[in-house]
Amino acid sequence: MMKWWGWGSEGVEFPMQHKPNLWPWICQELGIPPDARPTRPVPRSAIVLDKPVIHQGFLAAVEKALGPGRIARGEDERLLHAYGKSYPDLLRVRRGQVDRAPDVVILPEGHADVEAVVFEAQRHNVCVIPFGGGTNIVGGVNPVDRSGRMVVSLDLRDMARVLAVDEQSQTATIEAGALGPTLEQELQRRGWSLGHHPDSFEFSSLGGWLATRSAGMQSDAYGKIEDMVVALRMVTPLGTLTTRPAPRAATGPDLNQVAVGSEGVLGVITEATMRVHRNPPVRSYHGFLFPTFEAGHAAIYECVTGGFPPSLFRLSDARETELAFQMKSPDAGLKRLVTQAFKRYLAGRGYGAPCLMITGFEGDPAPVAALRAGAFRILKRHQGFHLGTKVGDSWSREKYNLPYLRDYVMDYGVMADVAETSTVWSNLLPLYHGAKKTLEDRFRADGKGFYLGCHISHTYKTGASLYFTFAAHMTPGKELEEYYRYKRLVTETFVTHGGTLSHHHAVGIEHQDWFEREVTPTGVRALRGLKAGLDPQGIMNPGKLIPPGE
Amino acid sequence: MMKWWGWGSEGVEFPMQHKPNLWPWICQELGIPPDARPTRPVPRSAIVLDKPVIHQGFLAAVEKALGPGRIARGEDERLLHAYGKSYPDLLRVRRGQVDRAPDVVILPEGHADVEAVVFEAQRHNVCVIPFGGGTNIVGGVNPVDRSGRMVVSLDLRDMARVLAVDEQSQTATIEAGALGPTLEQELQRRGWSLGHHPDSFEFSSLGGWLATRSAGMQSDAYGKIEDMVVALRMVTPLGTLTTRPAPRAATGPDLNQVAVGSEGVLGVITEATMRVHRNPPVRSYHGFLFPTFEAGHAAIYECVTGGFPPSLFRLSDARETELAFQMKSPDAGLKRLVTQAFKRYLAGRGYGAPCLMITGFEGDPAPVAALRAGAFRILKRHQGFHLGTKVGDSWSREKYNLPYLRDYVMDYGVMADVAETSTVWSNLLPLYHGAKKTLEDRFRADGKGFYLGCHISHTYKTGASLYFTFAAHMTPGKELEEYYRYKRLVTETFVTHGGTLSHHHAVGIEHQDWFEREVTPTGVRALRGLKAGLDPQGIMNPGKLIPPGE
Repeated sequence: MMKWWGWGSEGVEFPMQHKPNLWPWICQELGIPPDARPTRPVPRSAIVLDKPVIHQGFLAAVEKALGPGRIARGEDERLLHAYGKSYPDLLRVRRGQVDRAPDVVILPEGHADVEAVVFEAQRHNVCVIPFGGGTNIVGGVNPVDRSGRMVVSLDLRDMARVLAVDEQSQTATIEAGALGPTLEQELQRRGWSLGHHPDSFEFSSLGGWLATRSAGMQSDAYGKIEDMVVALRMVTPLGTLTTRPAPRAATGPDLNQVAVGSEGVLGVITEATMRVHRNPPVRSYHGFLFPTFEAGHAAIYECVTGGFPPSLFRLSDARETELAFQMKSPDAGLKRLVTQAFKRYLAGRGYGAPCLMITGFEGDPAPVAALRAGAFRILKRHQGFHLGTKVGDSWSREKYNLPYLRDYVMDYGVMADVAETSTVWSNLLPLYHGAKKTLEDRFRADGKGFYLGCHISHTYKTGASLYFTFAAHMTPGKELEEYYRYKRLVTETFVTHGGTLSHHHAVGIEHQDWFEREVTPTGVRALRGLKAGLDPQGIMNPGKLIPPGE
Repeated sequence: MMKWWGWGSEGVEFPMQHKPNLWPWICQELGIPPDARPTRPVPRSAIVLDKPVIHQGFLAAVEKALGPGRIARGEDERLLHAYGKSYPDLLRVRRGQVDRAPDVVILPEGHADVEAVVFEAQRHNVCVIPFGGGTNIVGGVNPVDRSGRMVVSLDLRDMARVLAVDEQSQTATIEAGALGPTLEQELQRRGWSLGHHPDSFEFSSLGGWLATRSAGMQSDAYGKIEDMVVALRMVTPLGTLTTRPAPRAATGPDLNQVAVGSEGVLGVITEATMRVHRNPPVRSYHGFLFPTFEAGHAAIYECVTGGFPPSLFRLSDARETELAFQMKSPDAGLKRLVTQAFKRYLAGRGYGAPCLMITGFEGDPAPVAALRAGAFRILKRHQGFHLGTKVGDSWSREKYNLPYLRDYVMDYGVMADVAETSTVWSNLLPLYHGAKKTLEDRFRADGKGFYLGCHISHTYKTGASLYFTFAAHMTPGKELEEYYRYKRLVTETFVTHGGTLSHHHAVGIEHQDWFEREVTPTGVRALRGLKAGLDPQGIMNPGKLIPPGE
């Protein structure tokens, strides 16, 4: 389990001591006094949770079905399941503010256990929140039900087995509670890989990925999680949905795609049969610099639509590139880049505010070599300056580090958040410029030093995703209020400019206010119908995804 | 519009006179006496439809909204919309049996017209059956509602425009009533192609493809229709669902994939934004012979999972290959194959009962050449005997001909039908052998001469589709009863052996009895919930897809 107050396991912190340029640069950009002192989260002992709502009949029935030791009632477990890992989640919990924790945490050991829990919950009108790794950043695991019913956090961490590998069909059936490292290690031990590496990889689960339509870094090669699912089981209050393992079918609406993205409001995904692939013998990551974001964009577009798609594209704009340069350890491969001489050389050639691209290739040696040659020709034609593999390797090594940095800067009162969207190619740059200008204008109007960077990632034939990171120093005591002004502004901007509400972070409670505009009132009706059909009492993750009715 | 009694436009027939071997071979295989005389469908004049149920208030409101001339009340139109083109549909209509025709046919000219019709239908409790090209073979367009309500066939044939092409995003927004040739001609005129060519291509519509999860012959390259859809509009009784054009999103269940496959029971798809691609400069089709079905299967598997997937694979088993040989025109490219000398040559090399594979490549010259070289190496390693492009071209020329042959043989009392399924690779050959044996045993037990052939097509990394064609001579007067014994047996066999109920023909009424086993009772509940949420009165294509409730 992660820290109750931040990202990662207790004792693991952002390695700021190895990045001598970073903190001074952040202080300068965000206007933090050099002598600022950190404010740590309140001590654990300062947090006292409300007395839990306990339904004895329900708990007795669950204990009878699951056996002893599967119901955790302690405050530590309850606290760990009270929040996900969004900025406002952490802001509240660091202050010791827990409005509502789940009343108990239940730990099923398999599909049948989940069926028993949900059956009893339905019988006793108890709310159930499915919990995977707890990394959700849209409020997906937070108890928000205000009906006074008992609320259970159903933590699938003891359901983490690879149940079967069908080598011929290239599929693996995996329990939903398996975290990224667990399932990849087990698959790779057998020679296979799922190839799904979201930023949260180390702490997020297959079930969570499916419930939120997660995207991994190599989605260009393997698809988003919804593209990999072949079949699944989802326990709903009225029974278990089991879909048939088949590549495609013409048997009504795609029920895999109804369960995927359902964010726990229809049921609990307990296992899934996923498309896997032979663990690739070649994995190589390369860095490129482009003189402008537009040049890098044009290069990506040509590769993706022209038959030379790598397994990974990540093009940072000039501002995000600046941050990447400041993030380097002095001994890392990017070292020479920061030398003034090299910067002057680049500036002289038109790379004054360069944009860093990371691109990756995975697979067998021969096809990878052919693909790479074709892609590099295109990148170079668009003024891509090849930095070699050291930059790529350095990125790959540090790719899971950013959430730790958020904890570090939060000690100094810094808001740090991300917002992502997707759109078709013809709208990508307009959306980028529109969102960037809107946010920058607001920060400037507020007189705040700020950081706003963006990268293009997750490309498709018809479009791509934009991923923004923004940070500013908050006025003490007004952090939450100020944060939501920016968060709401960026979300509003996405929807107004034709972007999706989210490409891979889901809706939860944070994006719910825009959901009807995203899917139209008729789309909301469709979801309310689904919900009524499978969860008529509204016990499954109440208050999430679907906006409350009239 | 097609013939009311069969396939294709009036006056176009199967070119039996150019296939001297075919009819004698069919007679011999099915045990039809050489002097058998054809029985033609009853004359049009022999069919008198029931008096229509007319709701004057509804019709007046529709006429007011759509303007004059958009409501067809004549018996010819009603008859044309009474049936799809399944074998039992044709069997009934050829006899003059029309249990229920729609009461009127309404011809909207655009999305707003459809909204007006569905709104008035909802207000007046009138049933609406969306109608595209009318090629459905699972009863999807047949009026089966027994409530006594008025039934409208909503024919989208006047909604056939390409509304917009977004060149940069490689998408086209197309009205749902566009038939295959119309939309391909318009797209190709602008340099683009959808690349969706189902067997019904000449007479089926975009809306029908989407509503039934259609698969085109080049699905290996471009995906099934559900893989091509970027956004759509669907008019439901409670409002219009509009999805956002984006490559991917994480905003709940995928509503595109709820509308796709909904078979008209949730609403009317009026337009869709589809992924398109540059009209490929190279299109080449090749024939190969394999000594066994298993050898061909192994070759396909290796190409698809090993990085050399053509845009088309179609591997016929020995029996279907025999039919293909008999189908040749004497002047076609396959000519030399039928010479006894060539057959002896093949037999001597182990191709005594050869299996014909058609494979196709589309795209730019260089990648096609590389892909073809890689695929051919694999095919040859699996004993594929290259027949060249003439066989492929001949197949491509005649690929839409088979439904005409069905009309021809129906004149002689022959049942001819198809059944298709899909499964993962590890189950493909077991499913093939299981289904084949079950059907053959039944035909033999019934003492019938029969034809049963199969091909593998529509391949994916995780599996493929199996497509069976079966024919036998029916006992006069017992055609329908005998047919359903075989049809039910083959469907039952698919479901029992782990295949899907359908890979691309949908559910309609013909597969409804197995639908609950396919999607589990919980899946049916999900669909009933969706239906209740969008169509609470049950006016949309009542009686289809979702089995009747308790």
